[in-house]
Amino acid sequence: MRVITLTTDFGDEDGYVGTMKGVILSIAPDVRLVDLSHHIPPQDIRRAAFVVAEAAPYFPPGTIHVAVVDPGVGSGRRALIVETERALFVGPDNGLFSFILEDHPEARCYAIEESAYRLPQVSYTFHGRDIFAPAAAHLARGVPPAAFGPPVTDPVRLPSPRLELEEERIVGEILHADRFGNLVTSIGRLQWQGAALVLQPAFGPLARRFPVLFRAGEARVEVGDRVLSGILHTFAEAQPGELIAYPGSSGFLEIGLVNGCAAAALEARRGDPVVVRVRLLALE
Amino acid sequence: MRVITLTTDFGDEDGYVGTMKGVILSIAPDVRLVDLSHHIPPQDIRRAAFVVAEAAPYFPPGTIHVAVVDPGVGSGRRALIVETERALFVGPDNGLFSFILEDHPEARCYAIEESAYRLPQVSYTFHGRDIFAPAAAHLARGVPPAAFGPPVTDPVRLPSPRLELEEERIVGEILHADRFGNLVTSIGRLQWQGAALVLQPAFGPLARRFPVLFRAGEARVEVGDRVLSGILHTFAEAQPGELIAYPGSSGFLEIGLVNGCAAAALEARRGDPVVVRVRLLALE
Amino acid sequence: MRVITLTTDFGDEDGYVGTMKGVILSIAPDVRLVDLSHHIPPQDIRRAAFVVAEAAPYFPPGTIHVAVVDPGVGSGRRALIVETERALFVGPDNGLFSFILEDHPEARCYAIEESAYRLPQVSYTFHGRDIFAPAAAHLARGVPPAAFGPPVTDPVRLPSPRLELEEERIVGEILHADRFGNLVTSIGRLQWQGAALVLQPAFGPLARRFPVLFRAGEARVEVGDRVLSGILHTFAEAQPGELIAYPGSSGFLEIGLVNGCAAAALEARRGDPVVVRVRLLALE
Repeated sequence: MRVITLTTDFGDEDGYVGTMKGVILSIAPDVRLVDLSHHIPPQDIRRAAFVVAEAAPYFPPGTIHVAVVDPGVGSGRRALIVETERALFVGPDNGLFSFILEDHPEARCYAIEESAYRLPQVSYTFHGRDIFAPAAAHLARGVPPAAFGPPVTDPVRLPSPRLELEEERIVGEILHADRFGNLVTSIGRLQWQGAALVLQPAFGPLARRFPVLFRAGEARVEVGDRVLSGILHTFAEAQPGELIAYPGSSGFLEIGLVNGCAAAALEARRGDPVVVRVRLLALE
Repeated sequence: MRVITLTTDFGDEDGYVGTMKGVILSIAPDVRLVDLSHHIPPQDIRRAAFVVAEAAPYFPPGTIHVAVVDPGVGSGRRALIVETERALFVGPDNGLFSFILEDHPEARCYAIEESAYRLPQVSYTFHGRDIFAPAAAHLARGVPPAAFGPPVTDPVRLPSPRLELEEERIVGEILHADRFGNLVTSIGRLQWQGAALVLQPAFGPLARRFPVLFRAGEARVEVGDRVLSGILHTFAEAQPGELIAYPGSSGFLEIGLVNGCAAAALEARRGDPVVVRVRLLALE
Repeated sequence: MRVITLTTDFGDEDGYVGTMKGVILSIAPDVRLVDLSHHIPPQDIRRAAFVVAEAAPYFPPGTIHVAVVDPGVGSGRRALIVETERALFVGPDNGLFSFILEDHPEARCYAIEESAYRLPQVSYTFHGRDIFAPAAAHLARGVPPAAFGPPVTDPVRLPSPRLELEEERIVGEILHADRFGNLVTSIGRLQWQGAALVLQPAFGPLARRFPVLFRAGEARVEVGDRVLSGILHTFAEAQPGELIAYPGSSGFLEIGLVNGCAAAALEARRGDPVVVRVRLLALE
């Protein structure tokens, strides 16, 4: 029983997501459907790319991830299948799978062109229903990715979020705020090693100087006009009302306000710089 | 494995929808549950009727669609099963299935009265849990619709949304805005035929003069104090900030703002008139 | 096929819930997943406790209910399994299962400590993914609760919501507003007995003087500076714009505004007192 996940910016008022599920179940009645998010901010390709890339490793091998954030629907943009060792990804070729492609140099991409694997009538505005849902369902039934169309060697990639190491200064940016108002930054992935943190970039052309190791307690995190001393493990180490920096559950540095909303308190915006001043240690 | 879809105005804070699913799975453990929408605006029967009617054709034959938008719960309003050639519909008899009934003259309706197919205790305020969820589950187990109660020959029907053809002027109304702020109108269903559009009414007593055929590029769409020239295929044909008219994914004319929110830009409300001036062509 | 329900304050933007489902399906591919609510207000343990307690009785025997509202994540707070005759509950030991424990004196609790039933790497901030989802999945596969860790005899319990009987005056409090703006109070559970209501407390140390019986039509309900005459069965018995008191679908007294939002109209807040003046009848 294959799992198909769905990520869109369709919201939950209109029945669009349910319609995609109806199409999938009509073709592949046995698949298991899981929603990742349908509240991606409208047309926010990067946010969807992040959600899919962070969730995918936790799914069973063979899972098919459909993502539809598709401002270019009806234009000439390609429809894409990305195949990694572990999973399949289906959606428009607009950068939605950038982070997957960076994490999986082995990935192969295919265009979805074969009309046998679409709905008989394809609209100009809802390829989620007419192209991507049927493609995912046919993949779940065992149709090989190469049967959908020719290989694609130049899938669209988003520019990598900022992550730089300048002397003993790590510079990243705010990616987005999560539901709790915690600010997720591009500084990741971080991993604890005792009281120290290893930073191994998740995005972008890996800078020569990474990975780096530094003591969490000595780091100073600068965001807006605030400076936070030290990187903590979790909210429970601080007091209500305190602003803290900590590695989030996916390893990206986050800024949170204990019992509050950091995004509002800092009036922070996507793209704002976040600087971490550290004293680098030698890696073991 | 039967599919049951759920459409309500219950939102997602309170566990009401989950409770209905618990009831269904207690009776029919093998059904597949799919949410269409639980964010129907409170008591907006027409919106729910639209969501169900648009999604239903994309589900496998035999699917059972439960809709609960139920301002009259606890009053004398009947509980209804609608059976079409392809699907079953379960909910209060308050107009929720108007569009289904218009599309399916062959449909038969039955009252839900048999107490064996309800929960042992029926509340005055939550028939979704106590009557409609159990009814759907028993239908999924193969209980025939006629076993639930007597036939209903006069199910409640909503007034049809406005759709008129006056000389070479098609007059409709705004039905609602979708999640992206696109305005969905009653002017449908539209289908492309080369560069022309065929309009074949989806609602209401089919006016003698339909279907009509007209050139999309020559149409002028009037909404509020704006006039849009031509009906396009999709957003990708226009520029950011441009207001466009196009047939939506269900074939209804929509008004959208490229990279923006048409509903806000036009200060449009449900029921506002939309006029399309066309030069009619002969139908092939 | 076991059912696992999920209740969190994670919202639906970030993919956190989907990630938990991926973890569960990786361990127990055959379980059936049902969402109760992911829109519990952030860190509102009592609201989540209420949602889970109200929904659980409607699920099949053996259902596993996972609840993650977890302000103390990463601190020393325990992770808990609660086993009742009918179901299993999994989540942080912070009071989430208070109402379940009050309803089920037979319940046994166990700490989740065994590392074999966690993800290999446990983060400091997302135990829903790393501890609770895997625990639920292993329970679904048949691992007995006692295998997860030692018994817990002092699970954290929330203070019971106010419910007092003073002479012929029942005093409760507002628990929360539901999606429709109806105010749910702690005065429950109420059950109709003809034209009279029986009040049998759902929460807290059962006061000696309960259950009580009174005529619904004679009751006077005081909330803020408003006095409502009589307790009705349902909205359909009143006029648009009228404020009414009625037993909600779970048996708790609710205050609603016909075709409106009582929470806004009354400017009511959680914890505000609600008084019902009654003349007590003898119980049969």
